[in-house]
Amino acid sequence: MDVIQPVAWSADGCGVRILDQRALPEREVYLDLRTVDDVCDAIKTLAVRGAPAIGIAGAMGMTLALDGTERVPQEVSLKIASAHASIAGTRPTAVNLRWAIDQVQRVGMAARADAVMTRDVMRGEATRILEEDRAMCRRIGEHGAALIPDGARILTHCNAGALATGGMGTALAAIYVAVEQGKHVEVYADETRPLLQGSRLTAWELKRAGIPVTVLIDSAAASLMRDGEIDLCIVGADRIARNGDVANKIGTYSVAIAAKHHRIPFYVAAPTSTFDSQTSAGAEILIEQRSPDEIRHSFGARIAPANVNIYNPAFDVTPAELISAIVSDQCVHCPPYAFDAMS
Amino acid sequence: MDVIQPVAWSADGCGVRILDQRALPEREVYLDLRTVDDVCDAIKTLAVRGAPAIGIAGAMGMTLALDGTERVPQEVSLKIASAHASIAGTRPTAVNLRWAIDQVQRVGMAARADAVMTRDVMRGEATRILEEDRAMCRRIGEHGAALIPDGARILTHCNAGALATGGMGTALAAIYVAVEQGKHVEVYADETRPLLQGSRLTAWELKRAGIPVTVLIDSAAASLMRDGEIDLCIVGADRIARNGDVANKIGTYSVAIAAKHHRIPFYVAAPTSTFDSQTSAGAEILIEQRSPDEIRHSFGARIAPANVNIYNPAFDVTPAELISAIVSDQCVHCPPYAFDAMS
Repeated sequence: MDVIQPVAWSADGCGVRILDQRALPEREVYLDLRTVDDVCDAIKTLAVRGAPAIGIAGAMGMTLALDGTERVPQEVSLKIASAHASIAGTRPTAVNLRWAIDQVQRVGMAARADAVMTRDVMRGEATRILEEDRAMCRRIGEHGAALIPDGARILTHCNAGALATGGMGTALAAIYVAVEQGKHVEVYADETRPLLQGSRLTAWELKRAGIPVTVLIDSAAASLMRDGEIDLCIVGADRIARNGDVANKIGTYSVAIAAKHHRIPFYVAAPTSTFDSQTSAGAEILIEQRSPDEIRHSFGARIAPANVNIYNPAFDVTPAELISAIVSDQCVHCPPYAFDAMS
Repeated sequence: MDVIQPVAWSADGCGVRILDQRALPEREVYLDLRTVDDVCDAIKTLAVRGAPAIGIAGAMGMTLALDGTERVPQEVSLKIASAHASIAGTRPTAVNLRWAIDQVQRVGMAARADAVMTRDVMRGEATRILEEDRAMCRRIGEHGAALIPDGARILTHCNAGALATGGMGTALAAIYVAVEQGKHVEVYADETRPLLQGSRLTAWELKRAGIPVTVLIDSAAASLMRDGEIDLCIVGADRIARNGDVANKIGTYSVAIAAKHHRIPFYVAAPTSTFDSQTSAGAEILIEQRSPDEIRHSFGARIAPANVNIYNPAFDVTPAELISAIVSDQCVHCPPYAFDAMS
């Protein structure tokens, strides 16, 4: 199966090759990033998106700091530190990005070798981060695939797919592995207002992988369930509290309520790093409000009166009691959830 | 209170004045329609929309068939019949439009008077249809307002407002009358994908009437309910079955499930003409699929892969058990519903 890989080394080994997600779903365009500035621009302009994918692009981008002409260790260190500062500054709150570039900086600084060897060591570390993410996605996929019966019609929300990670995604990984196992599935992708990650990204990557996919407006999901057209729901997660409450893209909660109402299993898939031992329950999670203009002006058109009030939360919290199981790279967690041990 | 009136006689009495809804929410533009062709164009291009408003515009447009120069009764009859055929042809399946222009044609054909007097008689009939719709909206509003407590925070979906009728609407009539009664209310308007009647129309007409309104994406409604920010929901209806099942704009069912989950009252408001004695239950209602391009191409942009499957039902069915009460121009109907007597 041809699962898209949004971040990789360039063919000549001298750069980072990314799928330019700004061109989707119109065109599949790849960019070869040759400098740290290129990488920063790609992250800032959302050419690469999804926390794991951004982290990987940042880690790989760190290796572009050195061109092999650096003569003294101080010069090597300075260039690494400067690249780290630039890349960290693109998305100051992205925990995953910071963690990934810290790793690469650490091995680079510790190398005590010439520029070329240092770069090779950093390159090895960035590759390790990429490969770890790929392996983790696959483990999530393998655990999740066990929940997907042959012939399943699956509803998903937003994009928890390959486009957001270094591997095959999280929620969509379960679907990819199920298909690899020879199961036939059909996917229904909520378009996911306001930014339409479902119709633009999820539909695109599934279609490209040859998996049957149908797009619907978010508010039509309940109708499909009532018509008996959905066998299970699976979504990703931004953060999972110790009691199993899940923060994810706005609209996830609505899907979970409708699934409960129709007695359809509702699954969440996420890496262990998403489990937040600092948060005991969803009520503690602060829901960030995004710009009203995401709703008022969509795709260049004004679709609401000027200055009208807008409620535009970035995500919502689905309480644990609506979640049939939570799939991680470790196992399938069943309720009642108590994730203290995972921290 | 300044409730918008989308269809009226022109100030000079020689035409039909409509609010051009294509210009909303950007601009409030009125068109004076002077000929039957003008009226047909306005209906075809959705300058006027909403079944009752279209019916009224058609009825009033019929009077433009005669310019007073017609010399013989045959000429009068021919022009009336020709106008009827043209207007009926704009929206062949619009039951309300057909009914309204039939009425005006009948009185015109029966007048047996000269052109000027015949036109006056037709004008009287069209005015009667407009006034009846206004009175009916007000009765719905008065019954519905009884369900709205002072301080209520109200969620609505789509546009069941003045912009769709000759009067103050159906679901929104309840809100307008509650405000006239001195109650303070706050309205949350689902944007209502795919065609965004909520953000474009409902938000616009409520804001214009001075009623506080906030727009949200459809999938965020459940979150608001969970936060305790919604006291009741009220929506319109396209068709109501004898058992109280309600067909309405896609997404209505999703709101009703979320309301039930949070124990929030969910009301439907509609004229008696919406109660369909031919339909015993919602399962009998055929759900029309609309063009995939409403989803694939939105806001002038392509937002889903070319040729991806699209599920785009025009409406959904909310089962009676999720509906706390149904407001008509006759009364507030409480469950269990049995509407045989209304046919």
